[in-house]
Amino acid sequence: MKCQITNALSDFFFEYETPRQVLVRNRRVGVVCRLIQLGVLAYIIGWVFIYEKGYQSTDTAVSSVFTKMKGVGYTNVTGEERVWDVADYVFPPQGDSSFVVMTNYIITEGQKMGKCPELPGKHNCSSDADCEGGSFKRTGHGHMTGVCDNATKTCEVLAWCPVENDHNIPDPPLLKSAENYTLFIKNSVTFPIFGVTRSNLVEGIDATYINKCLHNTRDSPLCPIFRLGDIVKESGFNFETIAKVGGAIGIVVDWTCNFDVDVKYCKPTYNFHGLYGNPSETDKARASVGYNFRYAKHYMEDKVPKRTLLKVFGIRIDIIVQSLARKFDIIPTLTAIGSGVGIFGVATVVCDLVLLYLLPKREFYKNMKFKYTDTHGQDPDSEAGSTETEESKK
Amino acid sequence: MKCQITNALSDFFFEYETPRQVLVRNRRVGVVCRLIQLGVLAYIIGWVFIYEKGYQSTDTAVSSVFTKMKGVGYTNVTGEERVWDVADYVFPPQGDSSFVVMTNYIITEGQKMGKCPELPGKHNCSSDADCEGGSFKRTGHGHMTGVCDNATKTCEVLAWCPVENDHNIPDPPLLKSAENYTLFIKNSVTFPIFGVTRSNLVEGIDATYINKCLHNTRDSPLCPIFRLGDIVKESGFNFETIAKVGGAIGIVVDWTCNFDVDVKYCKPTYNFHGLYGNPSETDKARASVGYNFRYAKHYMEDKVPKRTLLKVFGIRIDIIVQSLARKFDIIPTLTAIGSGVGIFGVATVVCDLVLLYLLPKREFYKNMKFKYTDTHGQDPDSEAGSTETEESKK
Amino acid sequence: MKCQITNALSDFFFEYETPRQVLVRNRRVGVVCRLIQLGVLAYIIGWVFIYEKGYQSTDTAVSSVFTKMKGVGYTNVTGEERVWDVADYVFPPQGDSSFVVMTNYIITEGQKMGKCPELPGKHNCSSDADCEGGSFKRTGHGHMTGVCDNATKTCEVLAWCPVENDHNIPDPPLLKSAENYTLFIKNSVTFPIFGVTRSNLVEGIDATYINKCLHNTRDSPLCPIFRLGDIVKESGFNFETIAKVGGAIGIVVDWTCNFDVDVKYCKPTYNFHGLYGNPSETDKARASVGYNFRYAKHYMEDKVPKRTLLKVFGIRIDIIVQSLARKFDIIPTLTAIGSGVGIFGVATVVCDLVLLYLLPKREFYKNMKFKYTDTHGQDPDSEAGSTETEESKK
Repeated sequence: MKCQITNALSDFFFEYETPRQVLVRNRRVGVVCRLIQLGVLAYIIGWVFIYEKGYQSTDTAVSSVFTKMKGVGYTNVTGEERVWDVADYVFPPQGDSSFVVMTNYIITEGQKMGKCPELPGKHNCSSDADCEGGSFKRTGHGHMTGVCDNATKTCEVLAWCPVENDHNIPDPPLLKSAENYTLFIKNSVTFPIFGVTRSNLVEGIDATYINKCLHNTRDSPLCPIFRLGDIVKESGFNFETIAKVGGAIGIVVDWTCNFDVDVKYCKPTYNFHGLYGNPSETDKARASVGYNFRYAKHYMEDKVPKRTLLKVFGIRIDIIVQSLARKFDIIPTLTAIGSGVGIFGVATVVCDLVLLYLLPKREFYKNMKFKYTDTHGQDPDSEAGSTETEESKK
Repeated sequence: MKCQITNALSDFFFEYETPRQVLVRNRRVGVVCRLIQLGVLAYIIGWVFIYEKGYQSTDTAVSSVFTKMKGVGYTNVTGEERVWDVADYVFPPQGDSSFVVMTNYIITEGQKMGKCPELPGKHNCSSDADCEGGSFKRTGHGHMTGVCDNATKTCEVLAWCPVENDHNIPDPPLLKSAENYTLFIKNSVTFPIFGVTRSNLVEGIDATYINKCLHNTRDSPLCPIFRLGDIVKESGFNFETIAKVGGAIGIVVDWTCNFDVDVKYCKPTYNFHGLYGNPSETDKARASVGYNFRYAKHYMEDKVPKRTLLKVFGIRIDIIVQSLARKFDIIPTLTAIGSGVGIFGVATVVCDLVLLYLLPKREFYKNMKFKYTDTHGQDPDSEAGSTETEESKK
Repeated sequence: MKCQITNALSDFFFEYETPRQVLVRNRRVGVVCRLIQLGVLAYIIGWVFIYEKGYQSTDTAVSSVFTKMKGVGYTNVTGEERVWDVADYVFPPQGDSSFVVMTNYIITEGQKMGKCPELPGKHNCSSDADCEGGSFKRTGHGHMTGVCDNATKTCEVLAWCPVENDHNIPDPPLLKSAENYTLFIKNSVTFPIFGVTRSNLVEGIDATYINKCLHNTRDSPLCPIFRLGDIVKESGFNFETIAKVGGAIGIVVDWTCNFDVDVKYCKPTYNFHGLYGNPSETDKARASVGYNFRYAKHYMEDKVPKRTLLKVFGIRIDIIVQSLARKFDIIPTLTAIGSGVGIFGVATVVCDLVLLYLLPKREFYKNMKFKYTDTHGQDPDSEAGSTETEESKK
């Protein structure tokens, strides 16, 4: 028994099977099949390996973004001069990757809780019966008291009074000077599978350079300081339009890296594009244009809580980090090769079909390729010899 | 030499190898093997290609979300009426994809920096010795002064005084009217590989429609305006419970798109689910229920800085964009085919095993399939002729 | 016709092709080829299946994070004691996954809109001619009025006055006690493809445990309460340094789950690392160190809007959720097998090359393996018989 196993094992190790093949000497078939095979080979090497880099595995990064605006805005509304610094015009203040820069506003000062008539156009009424007490309208400013104001012909509401009137958006935008604000982006990415951490302050982008550089796609593509006006222009918007009604712009920091070369070549590129619809579309065509939100500063005056309400129109900036790193890896390489060999098999099948079904001499090739077992006319038991024996018997 | 290369090349191009095969005429083997092969074929075509869409490559989107709440809340606490508008109840105000809507609160007005006794239950003491000056408790309100307050039998602390007492959560929630607030979601997605940008304001969702629609999973699934009460109900919570202690709800905007058909069929679907545990679990079973945070409004009174502290209970809403786009691509198609051919090879191996080891006539088939080289009895040098010659010699 | 189709079908179903093979009995070739084949098999089973888990499909999660800080800070600046609670030192207050904990600050109290000289070092001047009215410097505090202040020799600006002087950063940091703050993380992940939702409050992490536990990588790795000082230490920073100038730390919640075993084994691990550069690099080498932002508290004093400006230095904490779940799936399994069979084919090709081109007896093996069709000397029409016939004719 042990001997048998040993024999079987030694047979297994000292033998090697290789398929017997017919070498068809036919110009037409030969050329066609070789071209198909070369095509498959070219596809595997050229496309899968070189173009699509099928020999590499990929990884996306976890990233962290810190932003900082700089610059001072200036407004002169009916003779009242004031400046707006970074603590006034950036929401939220703490340097998030998504923030809003105020470029225009409607201010309603000294609001306090009380009763006052609604804006004309909302809750119009002719008598108290039109104003149901206690109810409220989704788009209204407050709770109806049930009284119709005779002067304005609108319902009286319990609200922060006086209610905000936002019918007229200041034009030109009050903070047109926002064009000259600058944005500093600090971005750090970590590719967990490859264990690589990079910062957008790459080699050569040191404190000295940062102090004097300004991002420019052509001349200084790695400078992390951006002028707001340039960002808007690059994303295809007109600054004055977007400053007036607000808008949203994405800054895509693109990390497409190949870690088969030195890690220092892994550098970000910055792209700018408008979010919520193409800037070239006419504003009227969009269902909802602009970007605005309401913000209140609360204070206490003579023991009465009051607030200053700001309807802020601004440019919302989203820093979107997109990353794709590649590095040689044995698994995708072998998978690509294995899959390529499989496709090679398909090429062979196609050639065989041509050979066996389309050529005039198909019967000849069929006989060359196939050997038939005719189980009826032959006694299998007597054919325990080698193939040679069997064939030479006849 | 040159001639040799030309010959080799022409040989290579005008020849074609195809494996020689045995055509086994055996019903049992034939049926079994054909069924296996058909199964593999059905798997490749039906499952990999049609069901899993293996002929398509995939892409996930970068997205940007803007939200806007509308509606007015109303509270009447011991006769003091007030309304809460969007600037009062949304945190943060600027329309982020993750925000909190206040639905209940504990207000502590007129806090100023000073010394006052702690709440009963925290830092209990019977004499000054129990209160170590300068130390503080992680869950306490301030720095201990080292004095034990005789009236409350708690340590005196340096803190914003009076300290907040949050033992009793208002029930029913003060801002139950939050149920009728509406949320407007503006979402833009970009599939970078396919170069497609879509907005959730798809074709047909124009300004007129938005002004009057309200999202309803069955009737108006594309309307981007949601009633807060509906969101809570769809996610399986009870509004009054979640409004009282707070909770977190995810709104998943799902972009599953097939770009082999027209891009206009790429539309979002909205799903709602509770975050942090299943809503059907009993509240007691969860380690940490509710959602609350503290928020202070600072003001100056008689040159003394004071603040109004709000413990805000609210519904945290996270807009989660999930995206998966598919489009025909030659690489995954060929990889799937190649891999399928490989599996076909496995089917052949299985059939061969049956043929060569399980059938009663296995010896016969073995002889048909294999030709043996018996290197001992033959002089290889004399066998330079064709196979036919070799075989016919015997 | 129908009969022909039936015949063809029955032929197809009752026949089975298997390639004819040469069984080469050669020790060298046998051993080499078997070893190559065993290597490929070991690679497929060991590497692709067991190590890389190629039989599983993968899924990444959508997640939601809620954070809550606890603890009280204490400062004593020139005798003025005050405490800082969570509403004072966390930005933003609502428990986002990315927030800043204030550890140091420069306070400028009582700023109001007005005209005052710039800081020395910015806009130096010797006469009014040096100060262009209406212009402003990117890094300045306000709009120049065109006047040169004689006392400070700097230009006068319209700004929030007095302007902030941030030349001296308090050292040691004012809120060094921030070290003892604690952070509570609530994280919920949903794997959409596998339909599994998990919370970081896994089995066994109940209210009782949370009330008394503190995260420790070795002893209590699942406790979701973290001491700020521990976080800083684990990420490799020195607390006093980072507290002084600020810094950014990522807390990676890693969900690497295998859903082939029970879902309860799917538990998070927490890692801490410094963002924006390695903590071990010298601070001077980094282009931009620290983390700070400006924050204003507005108030009204005698009808004049004023503000308290805080330049906040702090630790920005980003909770980064990384997730990868795996589960058995038939598609990747069969793809891996199919691809493996393809690589097997490569092994055979390599062995054939050795056999046919490198061995001394290569001509012999070539004859065994190949049958040549010599189309010139033979009349294909006469060879419609079986291969045996054709071969035995000679």
